[in-house]
Amino acid sequence: MPMPIYFDSAATRPISKRALDKFIEISNKYPYNPSSVYSAGREAKKEIERCREKISSLLNVDAKNIYFTSGATESISIVFSSLLWQKRPGRAIVSAIEHDAVKSFIPLLKDKGWDVVKLRAKEGFVDPEDLKNAINEETKFVSVMALNNVNGAIEDIKALVGISRDAEKNMKHKILFFSDSVQALGKSDLNLKESDVDAASFSAHKIAGPRGIGLLYLKNRDLVRPLSSAGGQEMGLRGGTENVAAISAFAEALTECFENRKEKEERVKEISDYIKSEAVSLGFSINSVKNTTPYIINISTPLPSEVLTRMLSDKGIFISSGSACSNNAKKGENVIETMGFGSKRAMGSVRISLSDENTISDAYELIKALKEAAIG
Amino acid sequence: MPMPIYFDSAATRPISKRALDKFIEISNKYPYNPSSVYSAGREAKKEIERCREKISSLLNVDAKNIYFTSGATESISIVFSSLLWQKRPGRAIVSAIEHDAVKSFIPLLKDKGWDVVKLRAKEGFVDPEDLKNAINEETKFVSVMALNNVNGAIEDIKALVGISRDAEKNMKHKILFFSDSVQALGKSDLNLKESDVDAASFSAHKIAGPRGIGLLYLKNRDLVRPLSSAGGQEMGLRGGTENVAAISAFAEALTECFENRKEKEERVKEISDYIKSEAVSLGFSINSVKNTTPYIINISTPLPSEVLTRMLSDKGIFISSGSACSNNAKKGENVIETMGFGSKRAMGSVRISLSDENTISDAYELIKALKEAAIG
Repeated sequence: MPMPIYFDSAATRPISKRALDKFIEISNKYPYNPSSVYSAGREAKKEIERCREKISSLLNVDAKNIYFTSGATESISIVFSSLLWQKRPGRAIVSAIEHDAVKSFIPLLKDKGWDVVKLRAKEGFVDPEDLKNAINEETKFVSVMALNNVNGAIEDIKALVGISRDAEKNMKHKILFFSDSVQALGKSDLNLKESDVDAASFSAHKIAGPRGIGLLYLKNRDLVRPLSSAGGQEMGLRGGTENVAAISAFAEALTECFENRKEKEERVKEISDYIKSEAVSLGFSINSVKNTTPYIINISTPLPSEVLTRMLSDKGIFISSGSACSNNAKKGENVIETMGFGSKRAMGSVRISLSDENTISDAYELIKALKEAAIG
Repeated sequence: MPMPIYFDSAATRPISKRALDKFIEISNKYPYNPSSVYSAGREAKKEIERCREKISSLLNVDAKNIYFTSGATESISIVFSSLLWQKRPGRAIVSAIEHDAVKSFIPLLKDKGWDVVKLRAKEGFVDPEDLKNAINEETKFVSVMALNNVNGAIEDIKALVGISRDAEKNMKHKILFFSDSVQALGKSDLNLKESDVDAASFSAHKIAGPRGIGLLYLKNRDLVRPLSSAGGQEMGLRGGTENVAAISAFAEALTECFENRKEKEERVKEISDYIKSEAVSLGFSINSVKNTTPYIINISTPLPSEVLTRMLSDKGIFISSGSACSNNAKKGENVIETMGFGSKRAMGSVRISLSDENTISDAYELIKALKEAAIG
């Protein structure tokens, strides 16, 4: 069987050779518990701190703002469950197009008395005016993702945080602004300092690092109080024996991801633009409009998305009918419909997501297969 | 520098060659997202299910009772935070010698109105009579670890669960019996079915598997309601892209751990008995008494534990002054003191923990070093 053509990099990326080699190297070099007091334990701790420095330097933030977790889902969980400590619930504003890892906290917040307001996101974009109107005196929390995983929309996080900061001035309490930034890493110009978010979640496997490792960026440690400090690791924010090998492999993957990032994005954009223009020629609708990343293209064809996805899979071409995680939900809202593209377009929408490993000939094969499948 | 002599296997074990090789193999063989619907995604999912079968068969439980998590800390967190959904808090009974990953949930439970009762554990053993006396009509939760990480005490979980089940008969609600079983795995005859616990936590890295992977055993899925289902993975119990390579390496490590387990334990017991008898000859106190695993020995010498640990570290011999996790706590209760061995013995207590990789000559070196350090 020939190598599959992979257009589902937003779901996960195979671990890169460099990251896996680093994982193996560090597994053997620092095999002991970083919390142990003896020399070989302390050496493992130092390796973690070197990685924290490297990653924070690449993200242009301070090392003390980076907390390693088991992945974005856990980072999100730490932030959301932290709200449960608050004696008086308030309003929580959450965009309607967040990942399930965020949305699935809404029932809990409601159960605990929070007034949860969902922000619409037309064509994938949260309108700063909508946020302005949604904020009331009780607002304590805002969650808007940095880059949408379904159609690649890049949110104007800086503007949204600005509105939140303005509103805060007339309040006695802070508004915690959280931005799930899993897909933004490597797929856009992420600038945590400039956007001034309070907290952001990241996952290594989306940038060809290993699974089971991610991080939580926190502007200030005191913004979040975890449900428990467990073994006290990561400044009491995330317990569990530190996964040194995975942390190192994450740092390696991020280094690789940021090498010539602009050049790689240019190349991906060419392929992406080709796919979009061919899709238009074939009469398909493009659901990735305006300011979207070239790494994610959402299109609608006349075929039901599951059918098209299966047909392409049979040809060895892997695309997605939604986010991989949403496949676990028995039924859920369709994000494309939530974005206002209409139910018909939603039914036939598929996500084509790229990495810098995709070639233009992958795109030719994809278009050929789309044509055969959806037009015949 | 010669290879260190490692007597801290209860803190972590270096990943075994077989487990690391499996990790590498599976990283390359199943690189895609197991929640994806295309063939290569489904293949990755099948690999997870094969591992679930293998692990559940080794643990003599059903595959549907096994949920993969990022480690024991997360497994514990899922169970404890699940209590937050309850409309009416009740009494939670927790042994006084639990790992920090368990104990650190006590402030949260208290904050949410739970009546938390701690069970003493003389010399490391929870007395079933004490549990009987602690259970009242409001009791909804009991947490007693299976094997203590500090002195190796093997709890009589079957008797404790029995008392809980008896009490339950006169109640309108269930008592959830949770048993953190991290150290019991591979270090004792664990029998989840016979002990009849409702839930138990496990970690791969304690049995020479990779970090960042563990599991939650649940007798019944409905016993626990996670704070969020996130991406819906693991039957909605634990979200996050499945760490297929780590899951496979965990299954491999457990297979390896259980091969000739009884023979390995016999050999470890000989080494362990030698260390204990020499320690007694040197005038040290043994804090691992009665029914303890041979894999963990806790002794007290006249030296403060941190001093002795450092002195041995300088000679390339790694032991522990407490659990590795407890080193992160600025100050905490000393578990040896909590067990009733007295503050003087607690001050000078060290943990020597073995694996089947330790040899008798490791033990000779250890005794020689202990003698030089503590007696001079």
